Amino acid sequence: MKIAPAQVNSFNETCIASHREKFQFLGDQLAKRGIDVEHVIQQIKDFQVAIPSWALGMGGTRFGRFSMGGEPSTLEEKIGDVGIIHALTQSAGAISLHIPWDIPENPQAIKDLAASHNIVFDAVNSNTFQDQPGQSNSYKHGSLCHTNEAVRSLAVQHNKEVIDIGVALGSKSLTVWLADGSSFPGQLNFRKALSRTLDSLKEIYNYMPADWKLYIEYKPYEPNFYSTVIQDWGTSHLLANECGENAYCLVDLGHHLPNTNIEQIVSTLMWRGKLGGFHFNDSKYGDDDLTVGSIKPYQLFLIFNELVYGINNNDANNPPLAWMIDASHNVKDPLEDLMQSLEAIQLAYAQALIVNHADLEKHRAANDVTQAQSLLQDAYRTDLRPLVQEASKRSGGAIDPIACYRKLQIRESLIETRGLETTASGL
Amino acid sequence: MKIAPAQVNSFNETCIASHREKFQFLGDQLAKRGIDVEHVIQQIKDFQVAIPSWALGMGGTRFGRFSMGGEPSTLEEKIGDVGIIHALTQSAGAISLHIPWDIPENPQAIKDLAASHNIVFDAVNSNTFQDQPGQSNSYKHGSLCHTNEAVRSLAVQHNKEVIDIGVALGSKSLTVWLADGSSFPGQLNFRKALSRTLDSLKEIYNYMPADWKLYIEYKPYEPNFYSTVIQDWGTSHLLANECGENAYCLVDLGHHLPNTNIEQIVSTLMWRGKLGGFHFNDSKYGDDDLTVGSIKPYQLFLIFNELVYGINNNDANNPPLAWMIDASHNVKDPLEDLMQSLEAIQLAYAQALIVNHADLEKHRAANDVTQAQSLLQDAYRTDLRPLVQEASKRSGGAIDPIACYRKLQIRESLIETRGLETTASGL
Amino acid sequence: MKIAPAQVNSFNETCIASHREKFQFLGDQLAKRGIDVEHVIQQIKDFQVAIPSWALGMGGTRFGRFSMGGEPSTLEEKIGDVGIIHALTQSAGAISLHIPWDIPENPQAIKDLAASHNIVFDAVNSNTFQDQPGQSNSYKHGSLCHTNEAVRSLAVQHNKEVIDIGVALGSKSLTVWLADGSSFPGQLNFRKALSRTLDSLKEIYNYMPADWKLYIEYKPYEPNFYSTVIQDWGTSHLLANECGENAYCLVDLGHHLPNTNIEQIVSTLMWRGKLGGFHFNDSKYGDDDLTVGSIKPYQLFLIFNELVYGINNNDANNPPLAWMIDASHNVKDPLEDLMQSLEAIQLAYAQALIVNHADLEKHRAANDVTQAQSLLQDAYRTDLRPLVQEASKRSGGAIDPIACYRKLQIRESLIETRGLETTASGL
Amino acid sequence: MKIAPAQVNSFNETCIASHREKFQFLGDQLAKRGIDVEHVIQQIKDFQVAIPSWALGMGGTRFGRFSMGGEPSTLEEKIGDVGIIHALTQSAGAISLHIPWDIPENPQAIKDLAASHNIVFDAVNSNTFQDQPGQSNSYKHGSLCHTNEAVRSLAVQHNKEVIDIGVALGSKSLTVWLADGSSFPGQLNFRKALSRTLDSLKEIYNYMPADWKLYIEYKPYEPNFYSTVIQDWGTSHLLANECGENAYCLVDLGHHLPNTNIEQIVSTLMWRGKLGGFHFNDSKYGDDDLTVGSIKPYQLFLIFNELVYGINNNDANNPPLAWMIDASHNVKDPLEDLMQSLEAIQLAYAQALIVNHADLEKHRAANDVTQAQSLLQDAYRTDLRPLVQEASKRSGGAIDPIACYRKLQIRESLIETRGLETTASGL
Repeated sequence: MKIAPAQVNSFNETCIASHREKFQFLGDQLAKRGIDVEHVIQQIKDFQVAIPSWALGMGGTRFGRFSMGGEPSTLEEKIGDVGIIHALTQSAGAISLHIPWDIPENPQAIKDLAASHNIVFDAVNSNTFQDQPGQSNSYKHGSLCHTNEAVRSLAVQHNKEVIDIGVALGSKSLTVWLADGSSFPGQLNFRKALSRTLDSLKEIYNYMPADWKLYIEYKPYEPNFYSTVIQDWGTSHLLANECGENAYCLVDLGHHLPNTNIEQIVSTLMWRGKLGGFHFNDSKYGDDDLTVGSIKPYQLFLIFNELVYGINNNDANNPPLAWMIDASHNVKDPLEDLMQSLEAIQLAYAQALIVNHADLEKHRAANDVTQAQSLLQDAYRTDLRPLVQEASKRSGGAIDPIACYRKLQIRESLIETRGLETTASGL
Repeated sequence: MKIAPAQVNSFNETCIASHREKFQFLGDQLAKRGIDVEHVIQQIKDFQVAIPSWALGMGGTRFGRFSMGGEPSTLEEKIGDVGIIHALTQSAGAISLHIPWDIPENPQAIKDLAASHNIVFDAVNSNTFQDQPGQSNSYKHGSLCHTNEAVRSLAVQHNKEVIDIGVALGSKSLTVWLADGSSFPGQLNFRKALSRTLDSLKEIYNYMPADWKLYIEYKPYEPNFYSTVIQDWGTSHLLANECGENAYCLVDLGHHLPNTNIEQIVSTLMWRGKLGGFHFNDSKYGDDDLTVGSIKPYQLFLIFNELVYGINNNDANNPPLAWMIDASHNVKDPLEDLMQSLEAIQLAYAQALIVNHADLEKHRAANDVTQAQSLLQDAYRTDLRPLVQEASKRSGGAIDPIACYRKLQIRESLIETRGLETTASGL
Repeated sequence: MKIAPAQVNSFNETCIASHREKFQFLGDQLAKRGIDVEHVIQQIKDFQVAIPSWALGMGGTRFGRFSMGGEPSTLEEKIGDVGIIHALTQSAGAISLHIPWDIPENPQAIKDLAASHNIVFDAVNSNTFQDQPGQSNSYKHGSLCHTNEAVRSLAVQHNKEVIDIGVALGSKSLTVWLADGSSFPGQLNFRKALSRTLDSLKEIYNYMPADWKLYIEYKPYEPNFYSTVIQDWGTSHLLANECGENAYCLVDLGHHLPNTNIEQIVSTLMWRGKLGGFHFNDSKYGDDDLTVGSIKPYQLFLIFNELVYGINNNDANNPPLAWMIDASHNVKDPLEDLMQSLEAIQLAYAQALIVNHADLEKHRAANDVTQAQSLLQDAYRTDLRPLVQEASKRSGGAIDPIACYRKLQIRESLIETRGLETTASGL
Repeated sequence: MKIAPAQVNSFNETCIASHREKFQFLGDQLAKRGIDVEHVIQQIKDFQVAIPSWALGMGGTRFGRFSMGGEPSTLEEKIGDVGIIHALTQSAGAISLHIPWDIPENPQAIKDLAASHNIVFDAVNSNTFQDQPGQSNSYKHGSLCHTNEAVRSLAVQHNKEVIDIGVALGSKSLTVWLADGSSFPGQLNFRKALSRTLDSLKEIYNYMPADWKLYIEYKPYEPNFYSTVIQDWGTSHLLANECGENAYCLVDLGHHLPNTNIEQIVSTLMWRGKLGGFHFNDSKYGDDDLTVGSIKPYQLFLIFNELVYGINNNDANNPPLAWMIDASHNVKDPLEDLMQSLEAIQLAYAQALIVNHADLEKHRAANDVTQAQSLLQDAYRTDLRPLVQEASKRSGGAIDPIACYRKLQIRESLIETRGLETTASGL
């Protein structure tokens, strides 16, 4: 199904008056503070976040999964769902495929379908953490780090195929997340495992077209519970440096030990020009994969503050970042959940955009900690929702995407079309 | 398949000489320290740990599961597997069933089968964290805490059925672990959810036969990632107190926030006479469900030190504890893994048994921290494996259970019988 | 020094126009949402937070302390500093004394002084974690839990004296925070230590006047690093129950293990009518004692949401709570820091006050997680600073207390009066 | 005071028989497993750990400090105390000075004194986390990272002086630990702070003699509670790489976020040839600075397992490591505490030395996780105390250093000489 612009406009009519009032007031207030409101709106409009193909169905945990109806079961349906989100928010103009869950049989047809939704193909993702039926060797004990050369080879070959598919679809980057690691002391020779992983990554890296980028993701634990081969940004950074200039680190918000200062990692990597991609989600305990901004919205803002600073002070030629939501939707409608995430991302981005960095640097230079803290809090406490809504409206999106989604009874339509007993491929 | 005593004896012959030498020396050394070696051996022999029916097949994570061959697919086969472990170790003389995965069609036949392996039925476990096919209502948003009375009723009714099955098998206790909780702020009214849970538990409690015990398990997170209804021992303790004198807390080693002092929780609960059951496993990050003693063996010893102290100083009439291994076996043969767990448990128990509490209290009274620490370290550093092996041998078990298991090629036989493509019911 | 109302008014004149505009708009918006703005303002005005006497000077860490000038060195000066904060914010109308740092020589004179600042005496705090010169026995190895009866007696006696002082000043409650615990496994007999602590607390409890309350604080670690006698709310709850109906738990935001769901603890304790006091601060790692709301403002709001709900649904007769800021000011002017804390508290409180609980319960009843989450986020994202400022203004405080403080050059005056080389008693 | 060899020998006579029996048996058992016992003993004998000059007095926390008598107040007395430890253990043949607490007035005399105790001077440590009386600028807001060039200059200059002192004493390395960081979001420009730190470190690096090494320590928090400039090994590694080939990372066991896999960090750094120094301690919560091996002895063994592997497979020319105990002694006699630490270190080292790496690699190659785990556990569970005691005895040390220390009544003598009211410079 496809949402027509008229449907969105018609919804917007129901709340335009109230919105206009709030936007007008906010805009005036911001202008008084010297903020170029139009410029901020344009930046919000330009900010597009990829939706991963596996996030459109219900997620689950090792204890089970509770399905809801209308989940997409084909790549076409997944693109359709991203299309719905994008039509409503105008901020999700990209999809990130996961291979082998989403191998397109006819790449051109898929590209055309996506284009009809104004969606492009972001980074492609390989999967060497699950065995596929009939697979010659198992990833049970690792993939790119495996002790057996045949397994490593299989995993490298898979990544090459993922690149091929990405090329056919117009992707320009490959994200590698590895489950490789160990669950028990003694199981793995750390050094050899890391060394083999580096060799495997180099082979993949060398296979990439010259205009591609390799994103190396890190994660401290899960599904391995004693060690992971790429446990932190330091390891990812080391590997990216060894691979070459088109290899970058990828930060996933949920892939850190308790209390990690993630915003500082962002800052350090951008200082070195080595931050490639960003996976959004939120968490309280581990890699909980919750809705962005649902647990630690201030941390999200602080991270965006570093991202915006890094983009505006790009001394080390850091490339444009690949933004993606990487969440699991266990108890909410995935499309609603993704729209809540997008709203939180846009809000945090907007808040970061109104930070007055010149003043901030003055406070810092004077070690006026009180004022430095207050300045960030001031930006964060400002209610910028009308700005984000204005950006959405101007782009043709809904002022309140979730309300619109409910009013248009999208989920009900999807269930009618696809049925109640559905399972999307993915986790 | 069943292991004959002769097979074990025959294996023991191959290592008896070396064992005897070590045991002799250790026994002499311990005797010099005033330890009643025979008494310690008897206590180790008497210590029996239940194996849960779901731990006999390969476990997995939300990212996948890698099967191995020969996994048990029926309750009879599961009992057979526990029988193997018990024959080799003589320390696993109980099985803990999980309903509805293990509903016995013919309870008497199942009891007879278990008895033929010298296995009794420990606590039965209910499952209200997964929906069963055709279930009238879903546990997606909770069970005993659910906002909808019909769901709570369904969950209570399920627990009553579990009790009935337990009665038929000779169990004397019910363990309730709830996945109930929330993944997002706002989702749950904490107070009402806890209050409804208490009401549901009371109904279950009141249904239990008078000689039964209710074990209330707590867990801070997973599969819910913002809150769980019974998040910690304090909540479990509150609920147990409200339910009545036959309700107790159950401690699972993996169900704590980072750095929790679990041994102190054990001490406090035994002081109040409210510790009912214990689930063994090990973990580095969260509820990793790793092999007991594989990550933090000293913590395990410290916990046993409190358990032994509590048992020997039972002022508050704490009942005998229900011991169970609750682990997940993702990368090792589950039977080997369980035997490694049993060995670690026995070792830690033995170490705790040789702690000289009279001396320890003297050091404590004098605030001689150096000596108090050294005294515990001394017990822990003593290599008591020959003692544990002697206990196993005297009970008819193998001196080295895993070596025996491999020599007898048990897994190979199981695969031959059951096939290579097997999946045990469970997680 | 004392701030005259005219000084504050004169400052307010400089920002009243801008404030009025924003307050007018916000008030209209809230009114449209059905919120009784005047009632909310009244509640904010009524909300008073105690300042602890030890928080007015620079704090430090074990690595050192960097003083700033003008710190108060007498109780009179400390009351003066609270008076400054209260004059500017009208929300700090109480002081919480720490004995023996703040023993008043002439209680009536001190009461009069405080009254002249409109300040009352909140809970008094005992100190048995440091030895005082000439002390007969040392607290090195504990106080209320000590193995030596003479030490316990000394500590109990000290608490009785603190109560006496509190009575003389008009306090109505005693807060007991214990450093008691152990740094090494073996050092402490957990059970005996807890039992002795209970006995000591009972003696203190029984000494209290009938209209007094005892607040029992918990903390998982520091300054002891293996165990603390009262490690969590469960232990505190157990002790409070044993002591009697005037004994309550005290929650300090920084006294929890990583990732603890504190708002749920608040909910549970209020459900049982056992939450007595609350210590505000913020932290990223441990008991960091940072400015309230500086790290996790959303968590602060969620906690307030539970507090407000608990106050409005007081089924278990929970008493009014004792609110206090318990922070350490290592890098900022303590008075500015405290005013930042007060602002964060008032904002979170205001946000909680505008939560529509009737709607929230509807979403919860329907398990509409999306809407339940959004409803809380909506309240939190609303910029309520104009409301808080209006409350301050109406009470006679400054619209922007810190700006006023700087404009009036208070710190400069304090330095002039008290000197540059000052050290406040405290940590 | 100085311990005469005859005193130690005389003590050893009292336990030699029992020791000989145990050592004989253990030696035989190890020999049967193919272990070259004499070689292991030699390696233990050769292993020397530096004692930091600040660890010889009682430590404390921000809540206070409880002194004990006989603490050293001069550098001479500190060297004397290390001499006592070394005489008893023969494993503490080095001291690590902290400037400005230990500036020697007459370097040659100090060298001679140390030599008389068979003690050499290990890495020197600078201190830019505290202000010294009369200091021209304050380190309140940082040192090497400070916004003010004058402060950075002061801190760099201090480090140069520390190098000069080290040169005079025969040290060959400088350890830099920085407290630099921030306690509040906004306070610091992460990028600029790190960049300035790098520049400062380069200046210090360039000042070092060519045969010196620079050790760059990392720490995630404390005394700053929001960020630290060198928060993790990745940052330290980046800085060391930029400084040059004589710059290395220093790992302190207590400087990690909860659950960090430290052994893997050790492995990675040695793989790159960039691990320079190691600070031993233990902890349960944060940088608790507890006695080595008192909380997580298995982790200590796993780390030593990597260290030994790295030393034996030194492909990247990693230099010999600088070993030091970095603990704080709050409740125990510091000398006893240090001897407990040394014993734990020697035990873990000995356990690592008997790991059969050839077999381990076979298990790993076969992905035999059960056996790989068991192999490490076997080494760890073996009671190697007789081996460590034999090494001590052969070197002239005591079989049981703490028992000897008590028998010789060393502390009593120190108190007699130095008095009961003493405070060592340090934390």
